[in-house]
Amino acid sequence: MILTVTLNTALDITYRVRSLRPHASHRVSEVVERPGGKGVNVARVLAALGQEVTVTGFAGGATGRAVRDGLAGTPGLTDALVPVAGATRRTIAVVDERSGDTTQLNEPGPQIEPAEWGAFLDRYEELLGGASAVALCGSLPPGVPVGAYANLVRPARAQGVPVLLDTSGEPLRRGVAARPDIIKPNADELAELTGSHDPLRATQDARRRGAHAVVASLGTDGLLAVTPEGRWRAAPPARIPGNPTGAGDSAVAGLLSGLVEHLSWPDRLTRAVALSTATVRSPVAGEFDRTAYEELRGQVTVTGVVSAA
Amino acid sequence: MILTVTLNTALDITYRVRSLRPHASHRVSEVVERPGGKGVNVARVLAALGQEVTVTGFAGGATGRAVRDGLAGTPGLTDALVPVAGATRRTIAVVDERSGDTTQLNEPGPQIEPAEWGAFLDRYEELLGGASAVALCGSLPPGVPVGAYANLVRPARAQGVPVLLDTSGEPLRRGVAARPDIIKPNADELAELTGSHDPLRATQDARRRGAHAVVASLGTDGLLAVTPEGRWRAAPPARIPGNPTGAGDSAVAGLLSGLVEHLSWPDRLTRAVALSTATVRSPVAGEFDRTAYEELRGQVTVTGVVSAA
Repeated sequence: MILTVTLNTALDITYRVRSLRPHASHRVSEVVERPGGKGVNVARVLAALGQEVTVTGFAGGATGRAVRDGLAGTPGLTDALVPVAGATRRTIAVVDERSGDTTQLNEPGPQIEPAEWGAFLDRYEELLGGASAVALCGSLPPGVPVGAYANLVRPARAQGVPVLLDTSGEPLRRGVAARPDIIKPNADELAELTGSHDPLRATQDARRRGAHAVVASLGTDGLLAVTPEGRWRAAPPARIPGNPTGAGDSAVAGLLSGLVEHLSWPDRLTRAVALSTATVRSPVAGEFDRTAYEELRGQVTVTGVVSAA
Repeated sequence: MILTVTLNTALDITYRVRSLRPHASHRVSEVVERPGGKGVNVARVLAALGQEVTVTGFAGGATGRAVRDGLAGTPGLTDALVPVAGATRRTIAVVDERSGDTTQLNEPGPQIEPAEWGAFLDRYEELLGGASAVALCGSLPPGVPVGAYANLVRPARAQGVPVLLDTSGEPLRRGVAARPDIIKPNADELAELTGSHDPLRATQDARRRGAHAVVASLGTDGLLAVTPEGRWRAAPPARIPGNPTGAGDSAVAGLLSGLVEHLSWPDRLTRAVALSTATVRSPVAGEFDRTAYEELRGQVTVTGVVSAA
């Protein structure tokens, strides 16, 4: 089983409106709701790829119940969320029908009490016992210590479970120091971590800070991976227009499923790029187009990178 | 007991953001949730005035549970909402911290099935048996026939329960024809119903269409009432700056509580204007400031109106 951790799970709500105008009143013509948060999105893609996956993190309130009800229908996915007194946050994506643009409103998430964080740590260590890999994903809700990810990386490393960390800012900086197996920052997150806007230089610097392998997502340019086994760039066949929501989460699912199937790094990167490109192409935000994925697997180019540093 | 009907109940959510910009991502700094929909707001004010009040209408899904949980804590208020399969709608008010302006996003509401509408009609007739007055408030959710309010006005009249109708558009037009005791349109709703932008002329026309009494809310100018007992204008002491959200619902609560206490029309109008002005003054949207209300009761002026028509 692959374990994904989403400390700040979300009920993702998408509204369709004619045209969003500040300070006006809008009739929402369509409402779509689904469980969200990066680790939940990763789990959904893993389950669609046929992996057994367990979701943990926190859920509470009416929104938490809606998240759990939404997860209950996914074959291959087990809900091991820890109940909390506070309410799971909502995210609202308001899609403008005219322009297709999206305005995002993100709630901060529930206040996590020390006893709830303690209960989560116990549950996490239990779940690690049955895990072939673990992904630690997304932002931290209020009350969770900023160094939380370091406390989750260490027991995974101690139990020999490969651990991928996908977060940003100070939680990423602290988590990297605990030596996770893989981190998957985007260009902005990598620049914030290292101070360098040169992807290859920044990726190498992130490894020196503690990450065993760094897979940087460079938007439509694909992935740049610097690992103990080698360095590669993996690129989609062409720049694909579409909605990038969830493309990074699909890349994480590709990397993790390839890892537990003992694929080579180039094959893992191929899968990750094909999945994230098939997610951009999908008409439904955050879901991948299976036909596009099958086609793209044969079209991703992976090339070795000679270090400039 | 006073009965309030809210067919399209809502979970009212208020977000505070720095400044709303279309197509950007926003961190919400504060989230406030409460049960909403016009009849629910009227009931909350009635309960605060010490009236026994029963809330009916529809509630469903996780949002419906949140509405019911929110109502459970209000002394004097009884929840008689009818469960439905669809989810109660959300309304989102995004308050801009810089300007104080609000952007509103309103979900349409759940699809009501014919069997659910039938179950509601049965429950409504039962509840009328114990009611001293009934308020029919707000928009209709999808699936409820546009002539619904006429079907709710008739049994109230047949049972001798005074009925106030507060809605707009075609549901108002159809409801008025069933001869409710009172309607409380605002200036726009009155103009839409009658085609006239002259408040006195329009109010008189609305009576000819079937309403026994018409109380038109004219914003900061107060109320204009045309009734079988006489015609009055009731005005607050001065134009009060503030948030008009819920001011109309507070006016309805003032009219209804005055009716069941057998107050004269001028006294009912004084109460309605004092309550709605105290709601505009309150720092919390939709709630009335009790101290302001007590003060304002002595400051509202009610004057007789001589017909110009």
